[in-house]
Amino acid sequence: MSVDESRFARGLDIRREVLGDAHVERSLAQATDFTRVVQEYVTATCWGDVWSRPGLDRRTRSLLNLAMLTALNRPHEFSVHVRGALRNGCTQQDIQEVLLQTAAYCGAPAALEAFRLAQQVIEQLRQESLTT
Amino acid sequence: MSVDESRFARGLDIRREVLGDAHVERSLAQATDFTRVVQEYVTATCWGDVWSRPGLDRRTRSLLNLAMLTALNRPHEFSVHVRGALRNGCTQQDIQEVLLQTAAYCGAPAALEAFRLAQQVIEQLRQESLTT
Amino acid sequence: MSVDESRFARGLDIRREVLGDAHVERSLAQATDFTRVVQEYVTATCWGDVWSRPGLDRRTRSLLNLAMLTALNRPHEFSVHVRGALRNGCTQQDIQEVLLQTAAYCGAPAALEAFRLAQQVIEQLRQESLTT
Amino acid sequence: MSVDESRFARGLDIRREVLGDAHVERSLAQATDFTRVVQEYVTATCWGDVWSRPGLDRRTRSLLNLAMLTALNRPHEFSVHVRGALRNGCTQQDIQEVLLQTAAYCGAPAALEAFRLAQQVIEQLRQESLTT
Amino acid sequence: MSVDESRFARGLDIRREVLGDAHVERSLAQATDFTRVVQEYVTATCWGDVWSRPGLDRRTRSLLNLAMLTALNRPHEFSVHVRGALRNGCTQQDIQEVLLQTAAYCGAPAALEAFRLAQQVIEQLRQESLTT
Amino acid sequence: MSVDESRFARGLDIRREVLGDAHVERSLAQATDFTRVVQEYVTATCWGDVWSRPGLDRRTRSLLNLAMLTALNRPHEFSVHVRGALRNGCTQQDIQEVLLQTAAYCGAPAALEAFRLAQQVIEQLRQESLTT
Repeated sequence: MSVDESRFARGLDIRREVLGDAHVERSLAQATDFTRVVQEYVTATCWGDVWSRPGLDRRTRSLLNLAMLTALNRPHEFSVHVRGALRNGCTQQDIQEVLLQTAAYCGAPAALEAFRLAQQVIEQLRQESLTT
Repeated sequence: MSVDESRFARGLDIRREVLGDAHVERSLAQATDFTRVVQEYVTATCWGDVWSRPGLDRRTRSLLNLAMLTALNRPHEFSVHVRGALRNGCTQQDIQEVLLQTAAYCGAPAALEAFRLAQQVIEQLRQESLTT
Repeated sequence: MSVDESRFARGLDIRREVLGDAHVERSLAQATDFTRVVQEYVTATCWGDVWSRPGLDRRTRSLLNLAMLTALNRPHEFSVHVRGALRNGCTQQDIQEVLLQTAAYCGAPAALEAFRLAQQVIEQLRQESLTT
Repeated sequence: MSVDESRFARGLDIRREVLGDAHVERSLAQATDFTRVVQEYVTATCWGDVWSRPGLDRRTRSLLNLAMLTALNRPHEFSVHVRGALRNGCTQQDIQEVLLQTAAYCGAPAALEAFRLAQQVIEQLRQESLTT
Repeated sequence: MSVDESRFARGLDIRREVLGDAHVERSLAQATDFTRVVQEYVTATCWGDVWSRPGLDRRTRSLLNLAMLTALNRPHEFSVHVRGALRNGCTQQDIQEVLLQTAAYCGAPAALEAFRLAQQVIEQLRQESLTT
Repeated sequence: MSVDESRFARGLDIRREVLGDAHVERSLAQATDFTRVVQEYVTATCWGDVWSRPGLDRRTRSLLNLAMLTALNRPHEFSVHVRGALRNGCTQQDIQEVLLQTAAYCGAPAALEAFRLAQQVIEQLRQESLTT
């Protein structure tokens, strides 16, 4: 893909800041010839084109992503963005409020799944903080 | 959440009757400060506001849930409600008919997934009945 | 499509009984060389393969369809099946209960849309009964 | 539905503040015996249970709803909530940012539809402000 | 958005070739300060990043879009891409085959809607060819 | 289900050719009294009614399925059809192009999931080819 370098570089910086160096290093290291194209595309568009914009603060963008990923039913990316939200300064209470709002608009099964996944991430982070 | 007590209590009773005491005890015991709010909300709304209504019998409500959860693509809740449906007096044939109908309206991949999950629940119940 | 004749014929009979002769005549008359294939496919599969099965009564099949079509967000077919449900002996209260249950499981926006569409069909049927 | 009075009353107040008296009066006036149950349920749950919570400000709740309604593909409710968002103090730029973020996560067709609908609401509000 | 010029220009050329100059002129002329950002984003990403790639021919890309837009339930964009598909050299029979395949995988309601919309576009094109 | 024998037989042949004898043998062997009905229905409709049609080549049908299954969010069937696509003569690059196109139209989370699953299938096939 003819992703121009500056867009990709800008996106990669923001992605590192939001999701953490460790996560991004792992994603890049795991990329294969087959998957590299989507890593580049997502870094350039989601992070380079959208998250780079100053119009909304990162905390709000994180909360929006949690709401959308619940509605879209994408558990893997949802968990990644729970981590990102907490790194971006969202509190557990912020996340709780967003997910409860999904219960009313996306239905109870969507919200129950989102709470279950977010709880797992919170547990993992607690474990990780104990071991470091 | 300012869930009034009577709604929650009424919902909890019905939820126990439909999903079984063991399942509900487990859900309540596993609830954390983070997830408790959604447990309360779902008990009060799905069970206290909707399932408590006399307009449809529980067997029909279970079948409707299986159809909706297949369409909504929510495997965890789907499996919970297969158990509930069998407890509510739905036969395996009732469930089979509902799931085959999803093949026509939600598409083959949705129905194949639903049959696979329902089959697993049926197996588990058979195992459980052998060990008790 | 090599739809065998008996399946199609059986499906067409049931479709007429559920949706009404007038609706089915109109669908068939409007079919073009381009759309005929899907009319035949749907008649043979949904009606000939699924609705023809004795395992569930038609009233329950109609209620399941209303729940699925709400979850799937398909307003045109939803309205067709509200009509079908009333022809199949579902009461307005049955439909009301199903749609309220969608509010809890599919979310409020899905249910609000479903109630709006069902109300329109009920109005139309009232008008039609006045003019005949 | 046994919606307790205080929840409904609290929800109705917030719904009026967010969506405007005119909109809410119209909804209530148009409610029929058939649709009243969902009006009451939505007022009590979405507005009385969720929007009443102090954990997130209304501006953020509006932005979350726009993101979810785009993902869920519910144009009618989306337009209602664009109006609500502007009443809640969201700027056009806030809305623009949310909808552009949906392009990356929900896909281009979802975002194009959301921009089209939001533009129509903005036009309508401009017309209304000229005629009053 | 910091869409680099070459990506946008490349995307705009392809978009014109696929959807026609008239359609693209209209989209650009109708763009407002509010909607311009999504027009630029979509032109740069969908058309500049993806459609510009040589790995699949345009006819196949059109058929893929029709299948995805049916699954995603996006009628407006679906109709735009039916036109694009016919311009790209897809035959009516190609489109018919794709849409029948959606009946099996996305369910009958999705396919019925897609056939209805595609039929309307075919009618419009017939009318347009008569008047020019 | 009154699936006529010739449709089922024709479907079974094509399903074997596309998905491989081993996969189909396993599916049939695992079928229970509960799940057999959906195996028969899917073989007769998806394979017997749709894939049997000469209007599109199998390679294109496979690519369409990958796009639809990504949009529909059905990981199990998606993985089955990645295998089928490679058997049908689709190259890894073809699949890569389809999945990148889903990023633009279905959103980044859908495409990231699809790439992850397809990569796993590619790995498994590599392992299998080493051990045989």
